[in-house]
Amino acid sequence: MSRFSLRSDFSRTPNPLAEALAGLRAQGLPPLDLTVSNPTRVGLPAPDAGALHPPGAFDYAPEALGLPSAREAVAGYLRSRGTAVSPEHLVLSASTSESYGWLFKLLCEPGDDVLVPAPCYPLFEHLARLEAVQTRSYRLPLAHGFGLDAGEVEAALGPRTRAVLIINPGNPTGHFLHEGELAALADVCARHRLALISDEVFADYAWAPAPGRVMTVAGRALPMPTFSLSGLSKVAGLPGLKLGWMHVGGPDAARDEALARLEWVADTYLSVATPVQLALPRLLAHAPVFQQALLERVRANREHLARARPPGATWDVLPAHGGWSAVLRIPREPGEEAMCLALLEAGVLVQPGYFYDFGGGAFLVLSLLTPPEDFIAALAPLTRVLGAAG
Amino acid sequence: MSRFSLRSDFSRTPNPLAEALAGLRAQGLPPLDLTVSNPTRVGLPAPDAGALHPPGAFDYAPEALGLPSAREAVAGYLRSRGTAVSPEHLVLSASTSESYGWLFKLLCEPGDDVLVPAPCYPLFEHLARLEAVQTRSYRLPLAHGFGLDAGEVEAALGPRTRAVLIINPGNPTGHFLHEGELAALADVCARHRLALISDEVFADYAWAPAPGRVMTVAGRALPMPTFSLSGLSKVAGLPGLKLGWMHVGGPDAARDEALARLEWVADTYLSVATPVQLALPRLLAHAPVFQQALLERVRANREHLARARPPGATWDVLPAHGGWSAVLRIPREPGEEAMCLALLEAGVLVQPGYFYDFGGGAFLVLSLLTPPEDFIAALAPLTRVLGAAG
Repeated sequence: MSRFSLRSDFSRTPNPLAEALAGLRAQGLPPLDLTVSNPTRVGLPAPDAGALHPPGAFDYAPEALGLPSAREAVAGYLRSRGTAVSPEHLVLSASTSESYGWLFKLLCEPGDDVLVPAPCYPLFEHLARLEAVQTRSYRLPLAHGFGLDAGEVEAALGPRTRAVLIINPGNPTGHFLHEGELAALADVCARHRLALISDEVFADYAWAPAPGRVMTVAGRALPMPTFSLSGLSKVAGLPGLKLGWMHVGGPDAARDEALARLEWVADTYLSVATPVQLALPRLLAHAPVFQQALLERVRANREHLARARPPGATWDVLPAHGGWSAVLRIPREPGEEAMCLALLEAGVLVQPGYFYDFGGGAFLVLSLLTPPEDFIAALAPLTRVLGAAG
Repeated sequence: MSRFSLRSDFSRTPNPLAEALAGLRAQGLPPLDLTVSNPTRVGLPAPDAGALHPPGAFDYAPEALGLPSAREAVAGYLRSRGTAVSPEHLVLSASTSESYGWLFKLLCEPGDDVLVPAPCYPLFEHLARLEAVQTRSYRLPLAHGFGLDAGEVEAALGPRTRAVLIINPGNPTGHFLHEGELAALADVCARHRLALISDEVFADYAWAPAPGRVMTVAGRALPMPTFSLSGLSKVAGLPGLKLGWMHVGGPDAARDEALARLEWVADTYLSVATPVQLALPRLLAHAPVFQQALLERVRANREHLARARPPGATWDVLPAHGGWSAVLRIPREPGEEAMCLALLEAGVLVQPGYFYDFGGGAFLVLSLLTPPEDFIAALAPLTRVLGAAG
């Protein structure tokens, strides 16, 4: 056998849940899918098709950090959300995944590590590993509503930690970073010379306004290099168009050095297609339409879910403030996987908490993006199966 | 100062040539540019604008290796060029640069190395370094027309060499790999358990047919894992659309393991936009039109260049068989950089050989993509300055 790398040696054993799902689908019995994450397949509004048809789409102007007009469009979008940034401090990429890859290359030698939250969407370990970078977890305490505890961050630090990754609001936990949490985190970063990577792809999805929330770290005077990530995938529900961005901030000298190095990295790949950059002003103009429709969907599904919970049930919908998901805390027995398999047998697909590295109990994750007819139809079998476990 | 990685610490000192060029441009005196590489800015045909406007462009179907219809379109294109491959063995990416990144991750641990040819376009060292991979050079002997010498490859091997990279035809040298060269190289790869990465982005640009040439390693029964790279950038002159592909070949077990791992890697990034995948059949249908126009351009410019050389000149146009460039061998004195500066003073921009790691003499590289009016206008100052050095 030929030699391939350890860093590409991912386990490809399907878990029992994936096997059970494949079995149902093979029998022509697809469950009600409460794990949908593709915003283009749930009946939400898409932009006008003409938006993708900009003049000059074949004319190639290689600009490592992105076309000036596209960077200005992103700055304009952020401005419309109340954040003033210079387009000069924005870097375009093909996706936030690519942005992460570039940041791990920028910040880490092989063997260095970055801190990632738990629970959290399980992508960062893979992204880091492919860059020969390790991840270390810091806990988001359930007792604190899965909010950020700077003490947990500091306790998780190692000698080769280079950056702290935060997801704001948390995915799938839906907790927004608060001003006090950021101040404490900034102090940890400054004392340990750590960069801050802030994933803000769900930041536009607050379910209701509230004071004291940090919507983005972009445009703030913070003592460490900061990288705020977002992109078209979540902001406008357009994951197939492949355009992400990051804002680079922090002390001037570090920021400028980071930007100069990222320009080199970006120039090596030149990953962002011209048509989507030219279309960006129109695509971002569509974002508020999409976000409004999505927020109505999410709020309504969450309300249906809350109303479906019988008084005195042994399970709970955990409090949250934004995002596209709901987290249920369920009885510890018979366990997350057994519960997911029982739900699947009853015709409902949900995600087990272990997929997101929850700890301290048993959890399920439901997508609030689900079309309402499916979501509502799933509530009776969901409450029946959950109730039987109590 | 904050801490950034060594692998992102590229030298950003501009060379004297870049400074002189910037000075001329600042004075409003741009030279005749014989370094153009952007195929969208030299008056060659572009596809019909409607090609970029496929139905369903916003509908996202995440397929790690690429949409089946898009992989079939690439297989169909290769078939039209005489190469039968299964679409199952094709992997789409956003660019050949991204394909390289994925292959270095697949094949190499940090500190491992890959062999790259010299002379060669200077991108691979950067791509490798960003993956924490080293490069080692093997010489393409001038005496052999810059053809591949398997002895040079074997002599360059180190204990951590994992793959050999070939560029076919060479860039900028324009030498096509021959059957005998491939057989000898396959023997080296098999004996040392090395993968073969074959960059075939210029393979469609043979200036004239000839027997015994290897146009691609795809679809051949070779004893080592093989990866054949190409993409829309060169095949259809559309670098701004961001779509590359690689064919994975070699012994069945190794090929299938490579494909399974690449699927994991590709799934982590999901880099290829939907619209360009849907448009691919129409874009590839345009490729022959573009290639024909480009080949006429390149052949005509090369003929003008050959005719401009005075009998008995101390400089030569080196023999070549394909690609977009011409290589001149020039007198060793006053040196490549001094010659380029003298040419720039005479209003002509060319590239010095050191940019491509030429050795054993002094060389200049000229783009044959240059619009004919510029190319012809440049020949008088070019021959005058070169003649003065002889």
